[in-house]
Amino acid sequence: MLVQFTIFPTDQGESVAGFVASAIKIVECSGLPYKLGPMSTTIEGEWNEIFEVINRCRKELRKHSRRVYIVISVDDREGAEGRIEGKIQDVAKKLGHEPKM
Amino acid sequence: MLVQFTIFPTDQGESVAGFVASAIKIVECSGLPYKLGPMSTTIEGEWNEIFEVINRCRKELRKHSRRVYIVISVDDREGAEGRIEGKIQDVAKKLGHEPKM
Amino acid sequence: MLVQFTIFPTDQGESVAGFVASAIKIVECSGLPYKLGPMSTTIEGEWNEIFEVINRCRKELRKHSRRVYIVISVDDREGAEGRIEGKIQDVAKKLGHEPKM
Amino acid sequence: MLVQFTIFPTDQGESVAGFVASAIKIVECSGLPYKLGPMSTTIEGEWNEIFEVINRCRKELRKHSRRVYIVISVDDREGAEGRIEGKIQDVAKKLGHEPKM
Repeated sequence: MLVQFTIFPTDQGESVAGFVASAIKIVECSGLPYKLGPMSTTIEGEWNEIFEVINRCRKELRKHSRRVYIVISVDDREGAEGRIEGKIQDVAKKLGHEPKM
Repeated sequence: MLVQFTIFPTDQGESVAGFVASAIKIVECSGLPYKLGPMSTTIEGEWNEIFEVINRCRKELRKHSRRVYIVISVDDREGAEGRIEGKIQDVAKKLGHEPKM
Repeated sequence: MLVQFTIFPTDQGESVAGFVASAIKIVECSGLPYKLGPMSTTIEGEWNEIFEVINRCRKELRKHSRRVYIVISVDDREGAEGRIEGKIQDVAKKLGHEPKM
Repeated sequence: MLVQFTIFPTDQGESVAGFVASAIKIVECSGLPYKLGPMSTTIEGEWNEIFEVINRCRKELRKHSRRVYIVISVDDREGAEGRIEGKIQDVAKKLGHEPKM
């Protein structure tokens, strides 16, 4: 399945890029396929392994902050694999050209 | 922490109240404090117990459908407990009256 | 249609109940049907009137902060009216009893 | 500001790539900077122009379906421009290397 998530502390001021980077490091170390976007990161895998990764990100951010907010979307589709690139390619085919990505 | 979630199949047609009800039954059986809203359900508890409940809801819906979508928001705040009613009461105090809830 | 939204500043520290209350005041003044939940507010109306209200909330919060985050879910269903209570009642009927709400 | 959104019909069966492509065409025609991801599209611009584009996508999908679901996240930051690439680059700098994107 694909899981898109955004995580940030709400008590650490305006700039949170350092916190986001520490979460991305945890995603990278997981070895799961992922893609970083401007407002979220998408991971592909099984429920337990993905939510274990997001929980690790949460714990890392909570070391340095008292309040963390996370927004998550899950797309769980039967038999779907290789969908991080596949979903974008499906849309590109329907469009008849490459979208900006 | 508080976790708000919405879950529905995307391949079962326009009306999904039966599916939502089967998810709410699972939430009720968990024994965790929860509150049903018009577009989502909010649960209070620890990360592992809450995401175990949402995963059970997902598995239940996937028995009958090939694609399930879930939207989740997490508010993880140090020392916060009894927040399902507490957060609404904090806002009511600031407003100076009871909002519609 | 139903629109659920959450709005908060991310540069104003841990406690944001005052900001949330100022947004709820704007929702109340709109006269649109709404329901406050522990993590979000749901409004019923037409696209333009609802997003005008959310934009007013955004502008209010931006007066006092440099960064505001908003999470919105839209459920746009043909012929659906009176759904703030209706959706919960549909689920209650399927459950066979009143859920916590 | 940056706005990330996901839109799909919930009454048109499992595969919705054609609907997503018709929404992306509308985003492209707007001329606003955007980036397509595996689970969402991010647009940069002012509130009114962005929500006009999302409303056009909604109307297009509602021509062919009775129920449409939209999930939106807004990051409204003072003085932020060129952030579709800028946010990713900020994180890359903190990481010390290019993430997968």
